[in-house]
Amino acid sequence: MRVTYQELYDVLLRALLKAGFEPERAALCARLFADTDLDGVHSHGLNRFPRFMGMIRRGVIDVHARPVCVERRGALERWDGRRGPGNLNAHDSMERATELSREHGLGCVALSNTNHWMRGGSYGWQATEAGAIGVCWTNTMPNLPPWGASEPRIGNNPLVVAVPRPRGHVVLDMAMSQFSYGALVSYRASGEQLPFVGGFDADGRPTRDPAAIERSGRPLPIGLWKGSGLALMLDMLAALLSGGRATHQVTANPDEETGLSQVFLAFDLPSFETPEAAARVADEIIENLRQSSADGDEVRYPGERTLETRRRNLKEGIPVEPSVWRQVQSI
Amino acid sequence: MRVTYQELYDVLLRALLKAGFEPERAALCARLFADTDLDGVHSHGLNRFPRFMGMIRRGVIDVHARPVCVERRGALERWDGRRGPGNLNAHDSMERATELSREHGLGCVALSNTNHWMRGGSYGWQATEAGAIGVCWTNTMPNLPPWGASEPRIGNNPLVVAVPRPRGHVVLDMAMSQFSYGALVSYRASGEQLPFVGGFDADGRPTRDPAAIERSGRPLPIGLWKGSGLALMLDMLAALLSGGRATHQVTANPDEETGLSQVFLAFDLPSFETPEAAARVADEIIENLRQSSADGDEVRYPGERTLETRRRNLKEGIPVEPSVWRQVQSI
Repeated sequence: MRVTYQELYDVLLRALLKAGFEPERAALCARLFADTDLDGVHSHGLNRFPRFMGMIRRGVIDVHARPVCVERRGALERWDGRRGPGNLNAHDSMERATELSREHGLGCVALSNTNHWMRGGSYGWQATEAGAIGVCWTNTMPNLPPWGASEPRIGNNPLVVAVPRPRGHVVLDMAMSQFSYGALVSYRASGEQLPFVGGFDADGRPTRDPAAIERSGRPLPIGLWKGSGLALMLDMLAALLSGGRATHQVTANPDEETGLSQVFLAFDLPSFETPEAAARVADEIIENLRQSSADGDEVRYPGERTLETRRRNLKEGIPVEPSVWRQVQSI
Repeated sequence: MRVTYQELYDVLLRALLKAGFEPERAALCARLFADTDLDGVHSHGLNRFPRFMGMIRRGVIDVHARPVCVERRGALERWDGRRGPGNLNAHDSMERATELSREHGLGCVALSNTNHWMRGGSYGWQATEAGAIGVCWTNTMPNLPPWGASEPRIGNNPLVVAVPRPRGHVVLDMAMSQFSYGALVSYRASGEQLPFVGGFDADGRPTRDPAAIERSGRPLPIGLWKGSGLALMLDMLAALLSGGRATHQVTANPDEETGLSQVFLAFDLPSFETPEAAARVADEIIENLRQSSADGDEVRYPGERTLETRRRNLKEGIPVEPSVWRQVQSI
């Protein structure tokens, strides 16, 4: 079933207001969730909303908390997220990093003590809409075994890199596991095997069976040892820069996952270039990529599919899971 | 055969002085090459030195050129590498980024018009030795097909992330291909298959045969579509921030590869933390990683093997390829 953006937004907004959000924060939070579904990332939009509300009820997320700046050094700031809503904290942090970049050429906000930021890509799109290059990442609870190990001790630590481009922003949003847990769930639900090896089964054998990976808790890091190493570095940087927790200090239970550390970087692109000149460079790089299509497949740039989905969903309505939709309507 | 660090350094230094380097630059350049062999990365040390000298002879590299700052905006600077030696340009850029980070909390140098930086990890180690967190990357000539394509149109764009730690700096140095061309060469030379699929053969079939990948020019991006996307973003950021060339503008011939763009970021760790407190955080993260050893294998942190190799080579001498060693001695 499909609903309009406005319907989805209104239902989310009402639920958030009931949960005690101040009106302006409820509006931003509803927009961030609705935009995520609009872009087709349902696992981090409406489908995650009931868990988000549950964490508010259990006091894991404090709807009244706003991030505060705790330390400042030129273009680098430390903020305490005070266990506020993760998407609002992340949004405010990218906004502040962008402000810092206008003053210093680049800016960095390191955020401690925050909650799951939902869809990381949101803050990449946000930076590009403000005309800045945005880079951000988060640590997570332990959910990925380091390469060579069987026990999840590192996080899949999503990384976002975003470049503004008038003809379509270029936004990469990738976790350090080959397939997200959300992707495993949806392949399993539709009875499909993964298109490529996505992890190990309980006996340590490489597998394309999503259910076997969910059971073993052993998804594959991207690039094997390489993604495992990069996940570790992202965690170290997040914890060291923010002064917050590292992955090993975060409770390994998705319903209690809190106290995360994140980094938001913005580069002020117009420092040296007119937006037109920068757009030309980005366009040429994308054009070169397109020309490499082979075997009849088209080569896409990061964010391209998102824009297509956004356009389609704006026209045709946003697909919602009927049971979740009814559940959120009834809040 | 093995030689002492001093022997290797002296031979390199003599060759560089003969090639016209000023004494101080020759000394730095010889050290960067010798350190690379000391750390066991022979493909980017002595074994690459003859090609480096060839590029000097053919005028691709200008031994007298020093990078100059062309634009400045707070913590973000653009430098023109003027086709000088790539390792010296990169070293100077990380040094400047570190200086900027002391002033602004973080600093960024975007470098255009430079040459191959040889071992990227060198500038990560350099940042950590100055007590800073270092992040840097380079674009390259087109040497990697984007995911879904057969023709190399993106670069493997190595990325370096480095965190200082008194008990052993943590330095990740990874290209966006699963195996470097250097690794393919050495597996082929020893008649071995790759331990994992490393690319596609000429018919587009996944393969572990290094020679087949060298012939097809289709190495595998790390994480399949993910590493392909990240390589594209690193190229866009390097070209946009530096104002220099993107991968598609670089000649796809390793002997003529020049005019590269690079980004050097440094974070001033002591902004908020004493070095002791930061070391404790990094130690705990490494300690947690170690505890995840499974199946009898030890889980290593990025840079750990490098430190072991460094210690062994300092004691036992540095392995050199006799034919290359004689060739460089005779310069």
